[in-house]
Amino acid sequence: TLAAPAIAQSNPKITWRIASSFPKSLETIYGGAPDLAKMMSEATEGNFTLQPFAAGEIVPGLQAMDAASSGTVEAAHTVGYYYVGKDPTWALGSAVPFALNARGMNAWMYHGGGMALYNEFLGKSGLIGFPGGNTGTQMGGWFRKEIKTPADLQGLKMRIAGIAGQVLSKLGVVPQQLAGGDIYPSLERGTIDAAEWVGPHDDEKLGFQKVAPFYYYPGFWEGGPTVHFMFNKAAYDGLPEHYKSLLRTACQATDANMLQKYDYLNPIAIRKLVANGAQLRPFSPEIMQACFDATNELFASIETTNADFKKIWESIKAFRKENYLYTQVADYPFDSFMVSLQRANKL
Amino acid sequence: TLAAPAIAQSNPKITWRIASSFPKSLETIYGGAPDLAKMMSEATEGNFTLQPFAAGEIVPGLQAMDAASSGTVEAAHTVGYYYVGKDPTWALGSAVPFALNARGMNAWMYHGGGMALYNEFLGKSGLIGFPGGNTGTQMGGWFRKEIKTPADLQGLKMRIAGIAGQVLSKLGVVPQQLAGGDIYPSLERGTIDAAEWVGPHDDEKLGFQKVAPFYYYPGFWEGGPTVHFMFNKAAYDGLPEHYKSLLRTACQATDANMLQKYDYLNPIAIRKLVANGAQLRPFSPEIMQACFDATNELFASIETTNADFKKIWESIKAFRKENYLYTQVADYPFDSFMVSLQRANKL
Repeated sequence: TLAAPAIAQSNPKITWRIASSFPKSLETIYGGAPDLAKMMSEATEGNFTLQPFAAGEIVPGLQAMDAASSGTVEAAHTVGYYYVGKDPTWALGSAVPFALNARGMNAWMYHGGGMALYNEFLGKSGLIGFPGGNTGTQMGGWFRKEIKTPADLQGLKMRIAGIAGQVLSKLGVVPQQLAGGDIYPSLERGTIDAAEWVGPHDDEKLGFQKVAPFYYYPGFWEGGPTVHFMFNKAAYDGLPEHYKSLLRTACQATDANMLQKYDYLNPIAIRKLVANGAQLRPFSPEIMQACFDATNELFASIETTNADFKKIWESIKAFRKENYLYTQVADYPFDSFMVSLQRANKL
Repeated sequence: TLAAPAIAQSNPKITWRIASSFPKSLETIYGGAPDLAKMMSEATEGNFTLQPFAAGEIVPGLQAMDAASSGTVEAAHTVGYYYVGKDPTWALGSAVPFALNARGMNAWMYHGGGMALYNEFLGKSGLIGFPGGNTGTQMGGWFRKEIKTPADLQGLKMRIAGIAGQVLSKLGVVPQQLAGGDIYPSLERGTIDAAEWVGPHDDEKLGFQKVAPFYYYPGFWEGGPTVHFMFNKAAYDGLPEHYKSLLRTACQATDANMLQKYDYLNPIAIRKLVANGAQLRPFSPEIMQACFDATNELFASIETTNADFKKIWESIKAFRKENYLYTQVADYPFDSFMVSLQRANKL
């Protein structure tokens, strides 16, 4: 009969592996991969299976993209800025200093041409990517001593990577590369002076406030970092059309869900952290301004030699201007009033 | 053979109708229904079809929920606050004055127990609902004259509905019910003094700035209104499990997508509106404070007699307090600095 092949055609058995850049202990950001897997499996009655592997299980976390690019795995759940060592353009699909907040990033990605531009770049590595999570604005990190002016950054040994590290090094910071598990003992011994990790919910698990109590905000280098699902393009192109569509839908749902989860968990965590000794400090306007200037200088220099970077950064910059003009008559004044009520203890 | 029944089991043919509360001309908010339909159809190779009908095609826009409740249609794409005439609790799943912004609403809905609480209430009408869009903070509307103090609201005839209308009426506003198409001529003739519609992208189509040039912000009664897909519960319960899961995934993707689209389109529209004569004005702190007080008074009174309202509102209030505490060390200071750069013309 014709029936049997029609079944095979309809929901073919497919098993993919997702290499995650994250450890299972960061269950919110790691959780994007099992969330996607659950949605895909349920919608196809178990026929399209994605198996998530934590950082280190197949490849080290910072090689997840490479594993998908080479076809070792079909998918990576990772963050573009981990790969800036290859090309700074990688960072533009995730977060760069003083760019967009989470909503701005999503608006640009899904409707402002961002996804198409970034995929043009990812295609050169045999990948196609879809947003797969966001943390919201991260924290600026944990400091053993207060820093008040740009001069206080001079010689500061800070665990911070990528473009943010390059920007801060222009102000005298000495960026350090350290795995998650080494941060606490290094802060305790004073071999580093500061460290950035993620945000309250994730930071709370590591107890940094005991060894570096000053908790600075905002993490201006990550206003709304996009986490990505990056798929091996040949594997994606080989899917039946209805699986491709379902995968895009499930990625968009997973993407939204991660931010929703962080937005629920971070408020709880920040209260606990403060109760346990964290001292909240804002970066001073002088420090923010100096870092903004350093960022512009760095990007202007990259743009002179990197056409991919220039093309995408110009698109982000154009939308950034519109985004922060508009927010002044919409969410920002609403939030300002609500924050004023919160401060007056009226909520 | 066994194959034929297996096909039928796998992706059964289902055709549902979605009654939308919106006209096709508001393509962004109306677009949620065709977006969902496209995702569902594509993922099931055309087997699960949802047919969207604009307001008035099957039932009037403000009866979409009733049509899904009674089973006239299987689904409604609507906003809870349209039904406050039946019970003010309907509004709590969408937006009430001085509650949550879009991210806060999503955090509460998906991870803070909001969806379960609201569905307990919707269940009484034979419905189950999932968020299906958000506009972000809306505008406060169009005014023929400037309003500066609460006294200026006295006797003001404003097109505004629901709980916001009740709050403003405590300050002397006379709420008016008018269909979308009647707003412009009424403002022009002066039979009303002010009107709220949605936000820049939707408002721009109607040309209000020509007859009521003062465009106030923020729409404090809609900090982050959730649009809903409401399904007839018996129809939803009758779906195979994999269709249920797929529907939830596609609703979450559609929900995110609407906000992403508004966040891209509104900045473009606000610039055009100002170029065409709209004069932006913030509501004064005095007016905001007076409306906040009036809201608290109204809600305290509703809570004394409405247990459903009280249960859900207490949950929103508890999260609101945490949300606006946390945002002060995360997105809010990041946005503040970016807004300051925008104002200084440095972006």
